[in-house]
Amino acid sequence: MKCKCGNEGIYYQAYSNKYLCENCFKEEVERRVKKVVKPYMKRGVKINIGISGGKDSLVMAHILNKLSYPEVKLRCIFIHEGIEGFRDKALRVVKKFCEKEGLELKVIYLKEEFNYTLDEMITLLKEYKPCSICAVFRRYLLNKYSKDSDYLAIGHNLDDHAQTILMNYIEGNIKNIIYFGKDAEGFVKRIKPLKYVPEEEVKFYADLVKLEYQKEPCPYSSLSYRHKMKEIIKLLEKMKPGVRFSIVRGYEKLIKLINYEEKINRCKKCNYPCSGELCKVCQYLELIKERMKNEL
Amino acid sequence: MKCKCGNEGIYYQAYSNKYLCENCFKEEVERRVKKVVKPYMKRGVKINIGISGGKDSLVMAHILNKLSYPEVKLRCIFIHEGIEGFRDKALRVVKKFCEKEGLELKVIYLKEEFNYTLDEMITLLKEYKPCSICAVFRRYLLNKYSKDSDYLAIGHNLDDHAQTILMNYIEGNIKNIIYFGKDAEGFVKRIKPLKYVPEEEVKFYADLVKLEYQKEPCPYSSLSYRHKMKEIIKLLEKMKPGVRFSIVRGYEKLIKLINYEEKINRCKKCNYPCSGELCKVCQYLELIKERMKNEL
Repeated sequence: MKCKCGNEGIYYQAYSNKYLCENCFKEEVERRVKKVVKPYMKRGVKINIGISGGKDSLVMAHILNKLSYPEVKLRCIFIHEGIEGFRDKALRVVKKFCEKEGLELKVIYLKEEFNYTLDEMITLLKEYKPCSICAVFRRYLLNKYSKDSDYLAIGHNLDDHAQTILMNYIEGNIKNIIYFGKDAEGFVKRIKPLKYVPEEEVKFYADLVKLEYQKEPCPYSSLSYRHKMKEIIKLLEKMKPGVRFSIVRGYEKLIKLINYEEKINRCKKCNYPCSGELCKVCQYLELIKERMKNEL
Repeated sequence: MKCKCGNEGIYYQAYSNKYLCENCFKEEVERRVKKVVKPYMKRGVKINIGISGGKDSLVMAHILNKLSYPEVKLRCIFIHEGIEGFRDKALRVVKKFCEKEGLELKVIYLKEEFNYTLDEMITLLKEYKPCSICAVFRRYLLNKYSKDSDYLAIGHNLDDHAQTILMNYIEGNIKNIIYFGKDAEGFVKRIKPLKYVPEEEVKFYADLVKLEYQKEPCPYSSLSYRHKMKEIIKLLEKMKPGVRFSIVRGYEKLIKLINYEEKINRCKKCNYPCSGELCKVCQYLELIKERMKNEL
């Protein structure tokens, strides 16, 4: 099958019913990223890139690096949450990648910041899903270390985006629905360069440009509700190619029609923006402290 | 397992993790219906009931009849769309039911109104799903024959409700998202008495009070996207009992925050409220006319 340019197609895009050649495929992925990030890519701007070693964050960092003017300052931030036998490998991958791309890398260890690795936290907080704990600490640290930056770029692809939106709809979680789509006061502004790139295209791109990314999934990921939502989105996409786009685009229109303002509090202990008295990180840390006391 | 009242439980409600006895089960279903319809059940009010012969519409009509003051005027409306071998059976079921309940019944034939049965329309409009054609004509006629009534009661249960909401979210159909939750100008006001009753409870109730309803599904239903969405909702409900409620309740909260007004047009041919120049019914009828001409 031929690509629109006449070359041999090497990739079939089900939702557009088109074949793309290597060049047109890469161009299309890069164009979608550019469309999202262009308004932010100004001279003197500092962008932090959350990097994990997986295909998404490496593709994002690679394309941002390719698209950036020299006057845009990019810096990769790697959160080492301390998942035994998984995150060390990821760090090796990321170090090699950043060296090759000439990108600055900052590594932050959960253990150094909070005295516990994620593995240790999980054994103390058994009633919580690992992903809910990890996401909270990861987000906290990414924000903390982006205070001197203008933006924080996150490697969420179209599938992640559609999953989060659908999960919030299904859970009827109005505040999450609203805040996922709006910039929350007190947080560094987030950019999601891959939000219109389907997961399978991120992967295909990574392989085309020969990025060496970590292929094994996080050992905790299969336990998550998100993982199940992922399967449902795959099912929907098979039934109706293009639903991931329609979920995201519909959501983006909807969110513009919503009239809602809520005063953001500050955590009494750490001053982090939150809705209650204590932020989630301090709530978890209090619980850990309590349980450690009981263990002694 | 015991019911909260001490009697033997005969029904297990997964989302509340409770067992209910026959009486408490029936009371709970009726209480949920009452909560929805109470604001409308006033002296002198006329309510049309859309009735199909399936479990949902019979349970709805039965409970409305049970809850109504004598001063509330209930009338059942049956749309005979002309599905061979299916709808005649339904009509027999409905006639018997209305006689037993002492309810007035009005039967409307698609063939008499528009010269074609649904079966005939479907063969002429092959590019459309049967359900999309049927729903448009059914809605049109229910509205037309409810002009002299205050409300139109529709037998959508919790599952139908959650399906529609989720379908609109997934398709990103903003107008449908908004209009499903708001009363549209120019249409008779709709009430959905069963909107908080899960499908399996409607069925269980129907069997408990020995309603004779049509058990065979519409021969076209398995072709619909809605049918697939039904399976997805079942999957979600298994994963997280209660998601149907959270989808509906979240939606109800969300819709209140939305600021959107659109001027409703009137169809140039029939004056039915619509968004474009011609309403959907007139669009289908024009297409049928054209194709009949080509066939001659």
